[in-house]
Amino acid sequence: MSHSFKLASRQSKHQNSEIQVGNVVFGGTKIIVIAGPCAIESRDQLFEVARSVKLAGVSILRAGAYKPRTSPYAFPGLGIEGLKILKEVSGEFQLPTVTEVLDIHSVEECGQYSDILQIGSRNMQNVNLLKEVGKSKKPVLLKRGMSSTVEEFLLAAEYILSSGNPNVILCERGIRTFETETRNTLSLSTIPLVKELSHLPIIVDPSHATGRSSLVVPMARASIAAGSDGIMIDVHPDPQSALCDGKQALTPVQFTQLMNECAPIAKAVGRFL
Amino acid sequence: MSHSFKLASRQSKHQNSEIQVGNVVFGGTKIIVIAGPCAIESRDQLFEVARSVKLAGVSILRAGAYKPRTSPYAFPGLGIEGLKILKEVSGEFQLPTVTEVLDIHSVEECGQYSDILQIGSRNMQNVNLLKEVGKSKKPVLLKRGMSSTVEEFLLAAEYILSSGNPNVILCERGIRTFETETRNTLSLSTIPLVKELSHLPIIVDPSHATGRSSLVVPMARASIAAGSDGIMIDVHPDPQSALCDGKQALTPVQFTQLMNECAPIAKAVGRFL
Amino acid sequence: MSHSFKLASRQSKHQNSEIQVGNVVFGGTKIIVIAGPCAIESRDQLFEVARSVKLAGVSILRAGAYKPRTSPYAFPGLGIEGLKILKEVSGEFQLPTVTEVLDIHSVEECGQYSDILQIGSRNMQNVNLLKEVGKSKKPVLLKRGMSSTVEEFLLAAEYILSSGNPNVILCERGIRTFETETRNTLSLSTIPLVKELSHLPIIVDPSHATGRSSLVVPMARASIAAGSDGIMIDVHPDPQSALCDGKQALTPVQFTQLMNECAPIAKAVGRFL
Amino acid sequence: MSHSFKLASRQSKHQNSEIQVGNVVFGGTKIIVIAGPCAIESRDQLFEVARSVKLAGVSILRAGAYKPRTSPYAFPGLGIEGLKILKEVSGEFQLPTVTEVLDIHSVEECGQYSDILQIGSRNMQNVNLLKEVGKSKKPVLLKRGMSSTVEEFLLAAEYILSSGNPNVILCERGIRTFETETRNTLSLSTIPLVKELSHLPIIVDPSHATGRSSLVVPMARASIAAGSDGIMIDVHPDPQSALCDGKQALTPVQFTQLMNECAPIAKAVGRFL
Repeated sequence: MSHSFKLASRQSKHQNSEIQVGNVVFGGTKIIVIAGPCAIESRDQLFEVARSVKLAGVSILRAGAYKPRTSPYAFPGLGIEGLKILKEVSGEFQLPTVTEVLDIHSVEECGQYSDILQIGSRNMQNVNLLKEVGKSKKPVLLKRGMSSTVEEFLLAAEYILSSGNPNVILCERGIRTFETETRNTLSLSTIPLVKELSHLPIIVDPSHATGRSSLVVPMARASIAAGSDGIMIDVHPDPQSALCDGKQALTPVQFTQLMNECAPIAKAVGRFL
Repeated sequence: MSHSFKLASRQSKHQNSEIQVGNVVFGGTKIIVIAGPCAIESRDQLFEVARSVKLAGVSILRAGAYKPRTSPYAFPGLGIEGLKILKEVSGEFQLPTVTEVLDIHSVEECGQYSDILQIGSRNMQNVNLLKEVGKSKKPVLLKRGMSSTVEEFLLAAEYILSSGNPNVILCERGIRTFETETRNTLSLSTIPLVKELSHLPIIVDPSHATGRSSLVVPMARASIAAGSDGIMIDVHPDPQSALCDGKQALTPVQFTQLMNECAPIAKAVGRFL
Repeated sequence: MSHSFKLASRQSKHQNSEIQVGNVVFGGTKIIVIAGPCAIESRDQLFEVARSVKLAGVSILRAGAYKPRTSPYAFPGLGIEGLKILKEVSGEFQLPTVTEVLDIHSVEECGQYSDILQIGSRNMQNVNLLKEVGKSKKPVLLKRGMSSTVEEFLLAAEYILSSGNPNVILCERGIRTFETETRNTLSLSTIPLVKELSHLPIIVDPSHATGRSSLVVPMARASIAAGSDGIMIDVHPDPQSALCDGKQALTPVQFTQLMNECAPIAKAVGRFL
Repeated sequence: MSHSFKLASRQSKHQNSEIQVGNVVFGGTKIIVIAGPCAIESRDQLFEVARSVKLAGVSILRAGAYKPRTSPYAFPGLGIEGLKILKEVSGEFQLPTVTEVLDIHSVEECGQYSDILQIGSRNMQNVNLLKEVGKSKKPVLLKRGMSSTVEEFLLAAEYILSSGNPNVILCERGIRTFETETRNTLSLSTIPLVKELSHLPIIVDPSHATGRSSLVVPMARASIAAGSDGIMIDVHPDPQSALCDGKQALTPVQFTQLMNECAPIAKAVGRFL
């Protein structure tokens, strides 16, 4: 197959791209772990999660202030108040952060409060938003659309790259299939396939991919074994009371277990957590 | 199954909604035909198409000025220049128009130049855009996301309705499946299903659904037989030279044939073209 | 796209194939209606259904004696006793019959009791069974596998044709997608696509495709409008007590309504029921 | 979700099932590696592959004598001659074997020549074949249907178990999705999900799942990290000249590399190759 992306292609750049965020480097030997709650619910909640994931050795804190929910009646996030909490907690624990940006208006705002801008699955083909984050200097975490092919995924990255921003981190988060036991179907062959086709780093979000907390740890292990440059994990102090996606969140204790199980896998593929 | 949409539900409003655009009514006895080129390429092109589809009895002219292309290197549309051409041609032929709006910035602008605002498949879950067109008074043509369930489709409509705009016209345009002969898989059972679950009018776009001009006429007939309130058809004076989606476009002659074949089907279901 | 089927291709035979079963011809001007219960449950049940569908103008009676159920604990059909009932009822009402054959052993047996041998979706790529019915002289109703492409569907037909039996009737019955409101997603563009690629007749089973009785009538209308050579409909005297697939079955009264609604559609496409 | 399988369920048997084949045990601490060519092409070919995979530490030889090809014109396998070669090579290298059985007639024959009977994806819902291997005493390798849900997969196993044969080894081999870069989409979350729902051992076939040899090694690593009890790998002395599925086959040298990379992953999850 011939592909229509250029700047994102392995042909255009043979060496792996390394994307720097503070002291953290995506695409190097270290496997980057991002963790945090799906949505910022309160200062207390975020502090509690940040403290526990910091202790467990996480590199980056993730938390949503703007949530693109399927229903207009679901919790939409705390908005700007959430971003302020995020920035405060980030400073307190010396953890760089990633948060989702929903529209072209908020790119600058989100960039002031967070270190990485996330483009969510629903916006993977929101071309004007891609171009807008492409004009920003902030690193971008681009999540795969839930029914996007790998080629379309790399073309979405191409929109950002061709707008001037080379700092794109890809994120596989499952695709939509007929299976109903899991929220989505995590496609781990995407990892080595993207490594073949592109120089960009790629991480995996096993929480959203499976939607089922009991599957998150084995899928985190498998992601690293497949060659992923990182993992992004939902952690919540009390998943049953979470305002968003509680079924897939790990407790801090389960998350520590995940870190313990992933470390030897990282070592087995010549990397470290 | 219980569903989480409210304002869009048949329970909330037993009677079919009728959406008025100039003299045109969606959801009544008349089957509304929308036709035009995928993208406005030039004044000459749009004039030629508009003249032929007007003659063939079309109610509304469709044409894109902003095109959300998969690749950043594909033709993105003429932008504001395209909108101006659209408005001029609309006046000339007394045809109301529909055009796609890509981001929250352009809602007002597009509303000045066009009678109906289209939300494309890639933006069906762009929640801020849904809310923005929900604040507008313009009728909205909401296309189904290519991997959205019918429930998600109606929840996207719910975003618009709950933001204050009751004038939503749904559009089935095919879903993504494993089949590779056609661009998407047109799911016509969506028509009676939406009629069961909702009071909103729904039309079908067999051109984008099949991506194959030879299948458009039979699928237009089938759409009307299934109970669709309208059809939207790609027409181009010279499909082979089209800058966008030429494979699926009908020539004006083929389009006239479509109208001739659809009229008796409309009659067979107690409606008219 | 180039395709790898030969005998099934339109290139190999430009004229539409007509398959004769008694006085019934598939692929001609008349739309052939097949109706009956998913499973034969008793002589009384089959008599009641046969009487009502005969009155409504059906050409062929369908009823299963061997049912390939997903669960080993579901009703598997009456087997040979069912076949005997089928033959008796067939004679009583002068209705040719179709019944599913599950394995190579039963091809001859089923052929003694029924006029058409059905290959079900689950067996569409059971190559030895395809070859076995290919050696028979009986017409074969080949249902599309639930995740088969159109090319694979025609290659399954090719197995039968290349084994010596030219009497293959194709049946579109919905494909598996992510949508959960319907049992499968009925792909009606398959009809004109198959007509383009092949000379074989093709019919539609809207009952299994939708799994929802309220959608069967509009989808039957749409099938005929799309160019289908026939339809196959589940009819049960008391759907709620059916031992198999009751949710999709029509009552005899609903079936009569279907016939009334389909007749004008057939006329609109230059055919008759 | 409640499920309708019983004997296959974890509730019915809390302890993992261990299936013994000669000295080999599926479901224990050792990860079982099955390797060999997709199809037996000649005695020389099978000897060459068997020698190299034996040297690399494989436990079981796989090779097809009966191939259920999509096209009737593709190589169908050597049949009984192939089975004889398989048995001879098995004895020569002291490697137990697995081969696919296509219909109820051949169950006994295949059982005489091979140690494990494979039910291929296309036959996962061939219920009479499932019942027939269920009456056999031979271990059965049951491959997931390419569009089967996990529940349907376990219900297929239930057919075998409820017919009297408890020796079922499951095999995830990818599901059909919209992605076209890979042959299928390998769903590794199936592994921990099946472990949760069932006591049966499960292995992974990354060769058929990806259809792309460059992805096989990372997916083998990921399978083991996800908790798979084994892997099944296509190996061919000269993939480019293979009569079946050459694109996915590893050379003996590549296969040795796979073993070397998988060993540390196995150790990282407390197991060994």
